[in-house]
This record gives sequence, C-alpha cells and structure tokens, in this order.
Amino acid sequence: MTAGVTERPDPSFWAVIPAGGAGTRLWPLSRSGAPKFLHDLTGHGRTLLQSTVDRLRPLCGEQVMIVTGQRHVEAVTAQLPELSPEQVLAEPSPRDSMAAIGWAAARIEQLDPEAVIGSFAADHVIEESTKFADCVREAVAVARTGLLVTLGIEPTFPSSGFGYIQLGEAIEVPGAPHAHRVASFVEKPDTETAERYLATGSYRWNAGMFVAKAGVLLDLLAEYRPELARRLRELAAAPDTLDSAWPELEKIAIDHAIAEPAADAGRVAVIPGTFGWDDIGDFASLAPLLPDAADAPGIKLLGADDLLTAVDASGVVVAGSGRRVVALGIDNLVVVDTPDAVLVTTREKAQEVKQIVELLRAQGRTELL
Amino acid sequence: MTAGVTERPDPSFWAVIPAGGAGTRLWPLSRSGAPKFLHDLTGHGRTLLQSTVDRLRPLCGEQVMIVTGQRHVEAVTAQLPELSPEQVLAEPSPRDSMAAIGWAAARIEQLDPEAVIGSFAADHVIEESTKFADCVREAVAVARTGLLVTLGIEPTFPSSGFGYIQLGEAIEVPGAPHAHRVASFVEKPDTETAERYLATGSYRWNAGMFVAKAGVLLDLLAEYRPELARRLRELAAAPDTLDSAWPELEKIAIDHAIAEPAADAGRVAVIPGTFGWDDIGDFASLAPLLPDAADAPGIKLLGADDLLTAVDASGVVVAGSGRRVVALGIDNLVVVDTPDAVLVTTREKAQEVKQIVELLRAQGRTELL
Repeated sequence: MTAGVTERPDPSFWAVIPAGGAGTRLWPLSRSGAPKFLHDLTGHGRTLLQSTVDRLRPLCGEQVMIVTGQRHVEAVTAQLPELSPEQVLAEPSPRDSMAAIGWAAARIEQLDPEAVIGSFAADHVIEESTKFADCVREAVAVARTGLLVTLGIEPTFPSSGFGYIQLGEAIEVPGAPHAHRVASFVEKPDTETAERYLATGSYRWNAGMFVAKAGVLLDLLAEYRPELARRLRELAAAPDTLDSAWPELEKIAIDHAIAEPAADAGRVAVIPGTFGWDDIGDFASLAPLLPDAADAPGIKLLGADDLLTAVDASGVVVAGSGRRVVALGIDNLVVVDTPDAVLVTTREKAQEVKQIVELLRAQGRTELL
Repeated sequence: MTAGVTERPDPSFWAVIPAGGAGTRLWPLSRSGAPKFLHDLTGHGRTLLQSTVDRLRPLCGEQVMIVTGQRHVEAVTAQLPELSPEQVLAEPSPRDSMAAIGWAAARIEQLDPEAVIGSFAADHVIEESTKFADCVREAVAVARTGLLVTLGIEPTFPSSGFGYIQLGEAIEVPGAPHAHRVASFVEKPDTETAERYLATGSYRWNAGMFVAKAGVLLDLLAEYRPELARRLRELAAAPDTLDSAWPELEKIAIDHAIAEPAADAGRVAVIPGTFGWDDIGDFASLAPLLPDAADAPGIKLLGADDLLTAVDASGVVVAGSGRRVVALGIDNLVVVDTPDAVLVTTREKAQEVKQIVELLRAQGRTELL
C-alpha cells in the first residue's frame, strides 16, 4: 500500500466529524462559546477542526459531514468556508454521540445507500497523517464486509483516562492485513489494571473512532435501539422536523448504544493503529505537542515567543492575551493567559482544572465559561 | 507622654520625604514610571506616599517637603494636592540620598534656621502610627541638643537584607527616655552574624530615618564633605541654578556622607522604635501586610476579591488588571497581574524578580519597565 497522500479519495467514503465537547479541563482557553476544536492548540496555524478535515481529505475528498451545536455553526463555517450548508448538521442541543453520528449516518445513507462513513472527533490530535490514512483504508475495507470497525490506538503508557479495546483473533480481509475482531470494549481501568492490559500486548486505547457502512451502523442501531434508529432515519428524510424530533432522541453514547453489544456479538473489528494520537484532555497532555519556547529551555509555548520571559522555570505557557507572561523559579508550571482570565497551576494538577470551571459555574460566573 | 494623635504639631519640625527608588523587586506592579511609593500596596486606599504624609501630619502639620524625580512631580502633586509647588523639590536626575535630603535641609534652613527636620522614605510601611510619632518626638527632643538622631527598628528576624545600628550607652535628654548613643552603623550582615546581633539585644535595623536640626545636618556635612554642603546651601539660596548645579553634586548616601563618620565621633543618637516597619522589598514581604482573600484561605490578596478564584493554593496574588486570576494547586505562589504583564513566581523566589527586570532591560523591553 502506498502512502495515503498519493491515493485518490474513495468516492463512497464520507468523513463524519462530531464537533462537540466543552474541553473544560482546557479552561480558560477552551470556553463553552469557543470549545477546544475551534482552537489551534498546537501552534501550527490550523485549528483542531481544520486539522481533522485536512487529515481526512485524502480519504473522503469533498465528502465531509460536520455535526455541531447550533451556537457553533457560524464559527465552524468560518473555519471551513468550502463546506456547503448541507455539510454542517446543527444540533439544537447536545444528545450525546449516538444521536450526532446516527443523524449524519442517516443523511449520508440517503445520499448513497452504499456509503461507508468514518467518524472522527474534531478535537483530537494525530501526528502521522499517512499512517492514520492507511489505517482508515483498512477499516473501510473491513467495513465493506458488513462489520462495524474501530481504530485501536497503541498505548504509550498505562492510562487510566481512556477506555480500552481487547483484540480478538485476526480477520482475513483483502486490503486490511492488520484487522482483528474486537473481543471486548472495557471501561477506563485503574492504573494497575491498565498495566496488566499493556503487559498482554492485546489491548488498545479506544479513541472513539468508528468506520461502518452507514446502513450497517443504522441497522445495528435498529437491533439494539430500534426507536432511536427509526427516529434518526425519519429525521434524515424530513429535515424540517428537526426542532420537534431532536428532543425526543435518546441520549446515549455510540459505545453503549451499538459498539459494546455488537462486539459481544462478534460483529466489531479493530484496526490497530500506530500513529501518534492524543485527545488533549488537559494542559499537561498539550505539552508534548507544543514547540519549545525560543529563549526559555524547559517551557513549551503556545503563542508568540515574544510574549514569554522565563528564568529557572519549566512547564507549559499559553500566551494568549498579547500581554507578557513572566515565569520565575517554578517547575512543571502551567500558565494560561487569556484576555479575561489567567490560570496558574501545575502539570500535576492540570486534570483538576475542571474543578475551577465547576466552581465558577456555581458562583454564577458564566461570562468566564 | 500622651498618644501622638492628641498632640499638636511642632511648629519648628519639618517632614522631609525622599520619594525615589524604583522598587524593581516589585515589578510588574512597580515601574520606573510609577514606582512603588505611588502605589497603594496594602489595599487600604492610600498610596505609600500618602500614608507617609498622613503619618507625619500630627508631627509636622503643613510643613512637608517632598524630594522626587522630575518625572514624578505630576503624580506626586496629584496624590498630594494640598502641597504648594515650593513643597515639592524636583531632582533633575538621581544623585543619591545625601543630595536629596541635603537639598531639603538647605531649603528648610533658609525658612527657619532653628528648624528640625525628619527624613522618612516615601515607600516604607509603618503599622503603629502612634508609637512611631512618640518615637519621632523623642528624636526631635534629642536633635535639639545638636545631635544627629536616627530611629532603630526592633528586629523581628535575623535579616541579612538590612543594615544594623549598634546601641551605645543611654543618653539623658528630657522628653527622650529611650535615647541611646549609636555605637556604630553596620552594613548588611550574613544571617549568622545577624543572629549574633539579635542575641545581644543591642542591635536595631537601620531604616534610614534621620532627625536633626537642618543646620546641624548641613554643618556635619560641611565637616565631612565640605564641597557638597557648600553647593547645597548655594543651591537653596539660588533655586534657578538647579539645572547647572545639580549634576555637580557628589552622589553619595547620607549614611556614608555623615551618619557613619558622625557615629564614629559619638555625635549620633538612636531612638529604638517598637512600631511595625517594613520597606516592602519584594512580594514576599508584602504578604503579611495584605488582607486574606475572602474566599481563598491561604491567599493574601491585593485587589478585588471578585477577581480571584483559588483552589488548594496559598501565597500572594495581586489582581491588578481587572482580569480574573485563577490559582490551582500551588503553595507559596506569587501572581502579579497587570494590564501588560503577568508575573508568576514563588515567595522564595520573590527576591529574584530583580533578575527579570534586568533581563527585560537587556532585551530592550523598556516599555515594560
């Protein structure tokens, strides 16, 4: 198989990009009005949403479907001006991932009953696009056989923050030399359990990436959640019913709705991926993706080098307000400077930024959220 | 002796207030254009300069003479609108404390040859004004006998950051029950030496406060630095010669020019003071002077409570830009937020903020200094 960039897009493949999630552990950079997928979190000049589309273009060509909240439609179309209005599905309210992906699947099924869709979150970072594309192509090949397919990320440490996929036996599908059946999906484990998983070599991180024929995905849903499948297909056929239909949809994650029961029935495959992946859950996980500050060894910087002065300090600095950030004598520091709030914490505490958001909400400080 | 606030001002006493010093260890709050004496560093509604004048009013009445840099005259008169132009001496350039205090002494000597002056820096914090006033009254009584008098602050810890005054024998002067002769002034010691000083009980901190008859001060100077004394008296007699005369003045501290040699000659007295005193050298020393943040135990806050959110953090926060400062999971933190720069350091490193100022200067970032 040649490198992804030289391959042509697959005319029956659609990229579905759920663009949701508040990214509260990335506050004050990520806000409810400007969640993390709208930000260039790595300083490379493209937002996470734009990078997600860029990475899928060699596979899907023009066939992209974004699912996002109504309040983000304007920002999404500003970042992706090439999209037609039909390519941005605007959710009236959050109804979890099954409704979002299922809605897109139902729309695409209408356009092309044989279409294969691949669903990839708008706010993940993937470092080796070519490896990723090769992996998705294998997934598409397996999806054509009627299976639901997921990508399994090779763990780099025993994370207790991700769910895991247990690999089953290898599957023989032409064009998909690495395919395995999924033995099971497992919830986020504690660290000791995660260490055992890694020692076996047969567990992968569940990054929530799913590839399937649109019709297969909806048919699986029709088996496990028939009401939800029916409502989604009805909505796709009558888009003007959105406002009344949407609140009736069951709020459930795609994992629980179809991936887990289908895996138990032996109907899910996995392509193990070796590309670099991160969901950038917090500022600590952002660090490895950022460039070193020019004049401050040990500091990873998002923002202009011009805005940082550091002496005897290490960590992560987001210089996002145009003001100078000065760090003196603190290791593993996290400073996030924005026009209306500055956060100071440590890499170790980065996970707990969520608490701050909860506290501000409890205090009624919604203008900061 | 009754409490200071009930006493009348002494008609022959003048307060001289040298208002200089950059306060670089208080950057980014203190700037060369707005040094620390112009700031309300304790959150009590008056700047250090205003508080210095307030504290001296019961002693000096209207008789105040400020000596400051030409660039600060406008800010000084805005903060002290009651002063006449003759009460603000504007230095064309910094020529150290002897020139500043000597110039004021020479002006006051002209107005009242019998005047006693007391010189008190504009950027110190004194907590017990009544004790301070009682102490100054004793100093004035001793000064009338023809001695140079200083106030000696009771050390609260073995500081290596201050010079010390070694007490000599008690002096009998009516109205000055606590007066001693100064055995010697000693330079900033190392911590072990400071500990030995404290153990003896006969050392006090040198806070650079001097009380003397204006004529005595200038006559002492005429003995030790005759050229400088002559030039200062000439300048006072011909104020329009300022621009040509000023650069010719010797640049020397009052301690070296007169206090130390006069002490060696047995001509300096000291009134030991028990009032709370601090020169607020850095943000660590600012902490004890600040109120506790309302909703954040362990944080000392300069600024509106409304602008701070802290969880599991302690230290000092200056919320000075109107933006929210959020601290999570760091102890002994120092955060100083200003409109164009935010400093993040620790109490332990507070002394080293000076390095940052030097670095910014070396980088040509003078707009931040």
